[in-house]
Amino acid sequence: MTTPHLLLDRAKVERNADRLRTHVASLGSTLRPHVKTSKSVDVTRLLFDGGTGPITVSTLREAEAFAANGFTDVLYAVGIDPHKLDRVLALRRAGVDLVVLLDSVAQARAVAEAGVPALVEVDCDGHRGGVTPGAPEVLEIAAVLGEHLRGVLTHAGESYFCYTEPELVAAAEHERTTAVGVAEDLRAAGFPAPVVSVGSTPTAHFARDLTGVTEVRAGNFVFFDLVMAGIGVCTVDDLALSVVTTVIGHRPDKGWILTDAGWMATSRDRGTAAQPTDQGYGLVMTEDGTLIPDLLMTGASQEHGVLSLRDGSTAPFPDLPVGTRLRVLPNHACATAAQHDHYDLVDSSTAWPRVNGW
Amino acid sequence: MTTPHLLLDRAKVERNADRLRTHVASLGSTLRPHVKTSKSVDVTRLLFDGGTGPITVSTLREAEAFAANGFTDVLYAVGIDPHKLDRVLALRRAGVDLVVLLDSVAQARAVAEAGVPALVEVDCDGHRGGVTPGAPEVLEIAAVLGEHLRGVLTHAGESYFCYTEPELVAAAEHERTTAVGVAEDLRAAGFPAPVVSVGSTPTAHFARDLTGVTEVRAGNFVFFDLVMAGIGVCTVDDLALSVVTTVIGHRPDKGWILTDAGWMATSRDRGTAAQPTDQGYGLVMTEDGTLIPDLLMTGASQEHGVLSLRDGSTAPFPDLPVGTRLRVLPNHACATAAQHDHYDLVDSSTAWPRVNGW
Repeated sequence: MTTPHLLLDRAKVERNADRLRTHVASLGSTLRPHVKTSKSVDVTRLLFDGGTGPITVSTLREAEAFAANGFTDVLYAVGIDPHKLDRVLALRRAGVDLVVLLDSVAQARAVAEAGVPALVEVDCDGHRGGVTPGAPEVLEIAAVLGEHLRGVLTHAGESYFCYTEPELVAAAEHERTTAVGVAEDLRAAGFPAPVVSVGSTPTAHFARDLTGVTEVRAGNFVFFDLVMAGIGVCTVDDLALSVVTTVIGHRPDKGWILTDAGWMATSRDRGTAAQPTDQGYGLVMTEDGTLIPDLLMTGASQEHGVLSLRDGSTAPFPDLPVGTRLRVLPNHACATAAQHDHYDLVDSSTAWPRVNGW
Repeated sequence: MTTPHLLLDRAKVERNADRLRTHVASLGSTLRPHVKTSKSVDVTRLLFDGGTGPITVSTLREAEAFAANGFTDVLYAVGIDPHKLDRVLALRRAGVDLVVLLDSVAQARAVAEAGVPALVEVDCDGHRGGVTPGAPEVLEIAAVLGEHLRGVLTHAGESYFCYTEPELVAAAEHERTTAVGVAEDLRAAGFPAPVVSVGSTPTAHFARDLTGVTEVRAGNFVFFDLVMAGIGVCTVDDLALSVVTTVIGHRPDKGWILTDAGWMATSRDRGTAAQPTDQGYGLVMTEDGTLIPDLLMTGASQEHGVLSLRDGSTAPFPDLPVGTRLRVLPNHACATAAQHDHYDLVDSSTAWPRVNGW
């Protein structure tokens, strides 16, 4: 097989999925996985014991591809562009219960006119979009949506910047109370708002109470990555995805090993740069999955990676001749996977396609 | 058409190509464009008046796709992984004059055994791979390659960090003298080394003398980008590529406009962050291509972009309702284009596919 390519450890996906499903079920809620990380029908089936179930999508192309494979309970969790309602309606006419997201009266008017059910996005931590809890817009939007209002959604984007268990537990509880509070405001005003949707990979794992929450969204957990390990949501051993690469050169004068996986294969994501331990473009393992002490991918051009020892390391410089195969663990699995159109599976000749594009 | 998507201005590509072709020809050399930026047969044909010509590729998949479209003079300018020689040989047997690159005796042995012609990569500025000019490895590699030695190649990677015309002119001249010097060393030792290949988009434009250089490589110039404008190789008006996006929300409390183009559409590349003027994730234009004063894409999650005014700006905050279409000019055209599988053309219903993957 040529390099670079994505390598997926199916057993780790199943282990990661079991862990979160069990946790969410133990708190009396339901998981609605976000397929934006894998963009793979095959990976997502692993989360439903080979079947289908409720999913969250980040693009309408994902919605269309998953619908074609039997996933008919779909939340499109990016604020709706009114131009996209034609495609939403086509899916709904085909029997897909596709729900959209919005946070303005302007969007609500377009969505109500089209007759599409929607969740109202609520901001819980100033990270992205969403109406402010308690602001008059909440009831104005609900009034415009009328029977098309399904409920509320929030996302604790700030949880990606929490580094202790108490902070993560607090972020999860704040996410829950924000969403439940707005749902209660709506119900008090006469709007049913049956759905209360929360989630992010960190808060989903650290929630201690999901009272009032009808569904939990998380995406990254299927693969995990070095950012999640840095936050403490997983260990490095939980990472299910790596980029396989080949050594193509050496610069002993600089302490560099050159590989054929540049940013085209790993993405430019450097999420761990903002964390206490910067992992460069990723940790490096042997082909069989053993970490090489202190070896990082520290540089990237389009089709070249640079590997070198972590600053201050006393580890021996590894002997990795031209032609040696290695694996690089990603900073951000969503971004790294996005550079590829399929997954190769560990110990298998199977390839699973991704649904890229919009 | 749904957003986000890539929009390409064909007239600007033709103008950019004419400029560099004319410059290189005026100095008595030949352009061997690097197709890694566009990865598009259609875009590359514009550089050869609708026909074919010598090209540089960054992946064997590019080589295969371009060969299938009549491009038979191909340089694969990433250090060769010996595992890839089977695919190289298959193309050569199909009549493609595919030449590989190497910088070690180990690679030279594999390449000579396979009977594939090669250039020796020479390091001119410590940026990536390559043998050191004057080092004994140069002649050792040549001896192993024997009749398979085609010549030398260098790439002035450091030119991306030059900001004045004298620095750029000096980088180009240093690139030339390094490559020509090693070729002369080889010839003095009895190796013909007919090919002397140099290039980067900055040095290709600022070369004042190409004596002894048989070919100039450049890739980015077909589209240009904000990094190149920051270096001074082009103006913002020369940028041929943008990402079309739609406004999906507002956060007036934060001075944010939210769009449906996140890093999935633009890439995570923040090349201008290291330049005197940081352009965020890109400058923002109206749908018809007029720059909106001081509006930048300043944040990105997977499918959300955040637009805000440049720090300290006194420009009026633009009124851009939900549903407004905008264009974002990229930091790094190679990276942004890599997030997409095709180009939509300005004033045309034509779509040109890209050759992604390896």
